[in-house]
Amino acid sequence: MKTVYVTRRESFSASHRLFNPALSDDENIRLFDKCASPNGHGHNYELEVTVAGEPGRETGYVIDLKKLKQIIRGEIISKVDHKHLNYDVEFLRGINPTAENLVVAFWHVLASKISEGRLYSVRLRETENNVVECRGEE
Amino acid sequence: MKTVYVTRRESFSASHRLFNPALSDDENIRLFDKCASPNGHGHNYELEVTVAGEPGRETGYVIDLKKLKQIIRGEIISKVDHKHLNYDVEFLRGINPTAENLVVAFWHVLASKISEGRLYSVRLRETENNVVECRGEE
Amino acid sequence: MKTVYVTRRESFSASHRLFNPALSDDENIRLFDKCASPNGHGHNYELEVTVAGEPGRETGYVIDLKKLKQIIRGEIISKVDHKHLNYDVEFLRGINPTAENLVVAFWHVLASKISEGRLYSVRLRETENNVVECRGEE
Amino acid sequence: MKTVYVTRRESFSASHRLFNPALSDDENIRLFDKCASPNGHGHNYELEVTVAGEPGRETGYVIDLKKLKQIIRGEIISKVDHKHLNYDVEFLRGINPTAENLVVAFWHVLASKISEGRLYSVRLRETENNVVECRGEE
Amino acid sequence: MKTVYVTRRESFSASHRLFNPALSDDENIRLFDKCASPNGHGHNYELEVTVAGEPGRETGYVIDLKKLKQIIRGEIISKVDHKHLNYDVEFLRGINPTAENLVVAFWHVLASKISEGRLYSVRLRETENNVVECRGEE
Amino acid sequence: MKTVYVTRRESFSASHRLFNPALSDDENIRLFDKCASPNGHGHNYELEVTVAGEPGRETGYVIDLKKLKQIIRGEIISKVDHKHLNYDVEFLRGINPTAENLVVAFWHVLASKISEGRLYSVRLRETENNVVECRGEE
Repeated sequence: MKTVYVTRRESFSASHRLFNPALSDDENIRLFDKCASPNGHGHNYELEVTVAGEPGRETGYVIDLKKLKQIIRGEIISKVDHKHLNYDVEFLRGINPTAENLVVAFWHVLASKISEGRLYSVRLRETENNVVECRGEE
Repeated sequence: MKTVYVTRRESFSASHRLFNPALSDDENIRLFDKCASPNGHGHNYELEVTVAGEPGRETGYVIDLKKLKQIIRGEIISKVDHKHLNYDVEFLRGINPTAENLVVAFWHVLASKISEGRLYSVRLRETENNVVECRGEE
Repeated sequence: MKTVYVTRRESFSASHRLFNPALSDDENIRLFDKCASPNGHGHNYELEVTVAGEPGRETGYVIDLKKLKQIIRGEIISKVDHKHLNYDVEFLRGINPTAENLVVAFWHVLASKISEGRLYSVRLRETENNVVECRGEE
Repeated sequence: MKTVYVTRRESFSASHRLFNPALSDDENIRLFDKCASPNGHGHNYELEVTVAGEPGRETGYVIDLKKLKQIIRGEIISKVDHKHLNYDVEFLRGINPTAENLVVAFWHVLASKISEGRLYSVRLRETENNVVECRGEE
Repeated sequence: MKTVYVTRRESFSASHRLFNPALSDDENIRLFDKCASPNGHGHNYELEVTVAGEPGRETGYVIDLKKLKQIIRGEIISKVDHKHLNYDVEFLRGINPTAENLVVAFWHVLASKISEGRLYSVRLRETENNVVECRGEE
Repeated sequence: MKTVYVTRRESFSASHRLFNPALSDDENIRLFDKCASPNGHGHNYELEVTVAGEPGRETGYVIDLKKLKQIIRGEIISKVDHKHLNYDVEFLRGINPTAENLVVAFWHVLASKISEGRLYSVRLRETENNVVECRGEE
């Protein structure tokens, strides 16, 4: 039996501000530039979650993509869509919401929820030019 | 000589909140639902500006697309990119930033600035599923 | 007040077969070639519906795009998604499901259901290279 | 019967140089900047051709998109693909190959070749940010 | 010399029905939901085939992409395009055509046909939100 | 701490001709077909550069994507955009500019310039159907 990688794409619209409260305002502007703009800005984020495993003999599925969709929507999208990532999301408290920090946080949320196969990759497209990916490697 | 329509695409990332201050909070939630979320949310907006005219005999241009790019960036993008559309943009003061209201506001900003040809259309893609367009018709 | 054109994109996956029962099999193959293959084939269709009107003073909406989404899903998508367009869809009975005939049928379904603004265009993308559009002109 | 607009997308890869031989080199650089670079540069062009008409009662087609594809490939793509537009294309002789001039030239080539329906629009996407369109209006 | 991964994208339109004949109709509907709809449905599939190897000293090619295109078209596309995957394709007989099972079947067809370099990955995009990949790992 | 892969996309428009001067004209045409057309042709190339590393505790960045953008633009884009890759680019002298050879050359240029994290992948999309990637493996 071959390993197959199945990917589900979901999207959400959110606002954020890059800001490290341990640093001065000047330092924040030096590091984050226009991304530190006080009232925040936002993105249409695209989230791609990949699960690896062998297709089941009976179903031909690694994991039913409808189920994977429900997990992503229930655990992530419903909590971040149309929200401000610095203020409104419980599992992001205390995290500076760079795309890198977001994708690691999403990995931690999803890893224990994938019921069939194993989580292989979480990718987050912040703009058409910027993408980040976490494969769980330490 | 044939009329040619030339279109330049630019993009910006911003946050907004749909909210009409003349209405109650309940009414705002009824009308705007999750788009009225208090801390706002955001989008990667794509802006397409179309200018119509005859290509110049000497240049083969309706309007040099580099010049059109500079007009769009100078008049719009530099003022809305990485900003909160409810609070940070002078020419949007007092406007509830629905995509419809934005595209009309952008039309008014651009119409007088197009130096060659005539402004034909301003399109604003808010998400991959939602697009609005203004052609200046009253 | 300016007219604004608002567009909502929805998608569905369906199968169809191009076949005119008034013609012989040979004639069907001559006209429709591989599209007449007896067991049918399918597409991921993208449907774009455009409504024109003036944004409301209170809402800033021509028509709430959530409402437009519900109309498109209720009247079209729920009836054609994951279906065979020759056999499974009541409002397509007796219609040879070319993209052209589909987009006209969709126009007729939607025109009377748009509650605010007026239906301006129905576009149907059958493949990344083939698109059809109906604007209701006779 | 409703009018339907059918669009076929084709693509080609070509090089060009923006240069007006009636002007000095300095004037060309002032007008065309890096687009006047002597050895030329290139693009993946996307060409979208739209034909308008009523779907035939027997076929459900405005024009068979396979036939439209053959016309576009025979009249345009076969002559410009993998070519230098300043030197290699008979029907572009003496034309400074701006996108605007190209789309008008393509209109003239195609207008007389569309055998069913009438040519409505020729669009040429030069980059993901720059598009031009000709609808045949004088 | 560096390893390079070259990818060719091809597409096809087909219909299928998810159905396991070893199970009852009720069980099929429970597992496959609307994908088990009796008359089938369809997709525009995008197939991406990646070959890995060192570019040849004389050609600068891992494998001529024109040759790779011909292999994919000859071995896969010509057999599945505009077909029903449950009934019309010899090499899919007895296979429940989930995207996962399809991509494994395509791997087996292609692996022995790649004449230069080695087959590294076969990816199949079933919708804009669902993608599967096989890298040949057991 | 998790490893994160950050990717920046940039694009450029260039022309090239596939031609090996060590071979005869006939041999070049046999190997490279229309890609050997004497006056060259061109593409809109998309370049994706991926850097891997752990997000910094203070910044939440593997490498500031603005800095990565500047490196890619300074080292690659400014030298190849609107140029002829056979004649105009110092670091491509003597290289037959197949996509494979280009991506390896870009890897060598970038590898020593990435100041934070490590270069993981360079991908070059030549057309919407052809992509090549180098991960630095010998």
